[in-house]
Amino acid sequence: MNKVYSNLGKLVTVDFLLNKWLEWTELSLLCEEALDFSKMTVLNKQYHYFKPQGETCVWLLSESHMAVHTYPENKFFALDVFTCGEEANPNKVVQHFIKNLDIRYYNVNNIMRGIQT
Amino acid sequence: MNKVYSNLGKLVTVDFLLNKWLEWTELSLLCEEALDFSKMTVLNKQYHYFKPQGETCVWLLSESHMAVHTYPENKFFALDVFTCGEEANPNKVVQHFIKNLDIRYYNVNNIMRGIQT
Repeated sequence: MNKVYSNLGKLVTVDFLLNKWLEWTELSLLCEEALDFSKMTVLNKQYHYFKPQGETCVWLLSESHMAVHTYPENKFFALDVFTCGEEANPNKVVQHFIKNLDIRYYNVNNIMRGIQT
Repeated sequence: MNKVYSNLGKLVTVDFLLNKWLEWTELSLLCEEALDFSKMTVLNKQYHYFKPQGETCVWLLSESHMAVHTYPENKFFALDVFTCGEEANPNKVVQHFIKNLDIRYYNVNNIMRGIQT
């Protein structure tokens, strides 16, 4: 059976292991810059700090959403960028992070979202 | 080189194509039920309605986040469930959706998040 994939959304996930950890004030700023750089429109934002450490932040975008989960004890954070529509490019967001972080290791996963019939 | 994967998070993505579309009031209720069923703790929620159709909703959880993006014109929605920690099981959320929807097709993708060294 031939499969036709209708691309309705794009999800990019990135695992970042850093050499130099950024505190949330800095990482948060980088997130906002990355969204601005890639011309995403922020509609809303939710942030939560987990004791004793760790942050979750989710941005609701016109283009869909971005989520960051930090694990400061591991110098690690997980980034998810989901976009709908042809124009939005989640990899532009990712590029901005890669360019501006002191990275030991990172892993990018592109997942096309849609209907397979 | 041997690779050691430290599992810091679990992301499950699901693409749902339905036979019978659910309006947001119903789908939203199912989302809440799925979170309750799988013992997730909701800290906050953001919702946005896109004209002329389509919804985005992101739940900030103690366990991380859940996001839903709907495409009513395609009877399609995308579900993402991200959890941290050993106990939380994002696939329990997914099971609740599968059990309670009239599905034409669905596709599940499990993505382990963490450090590969």
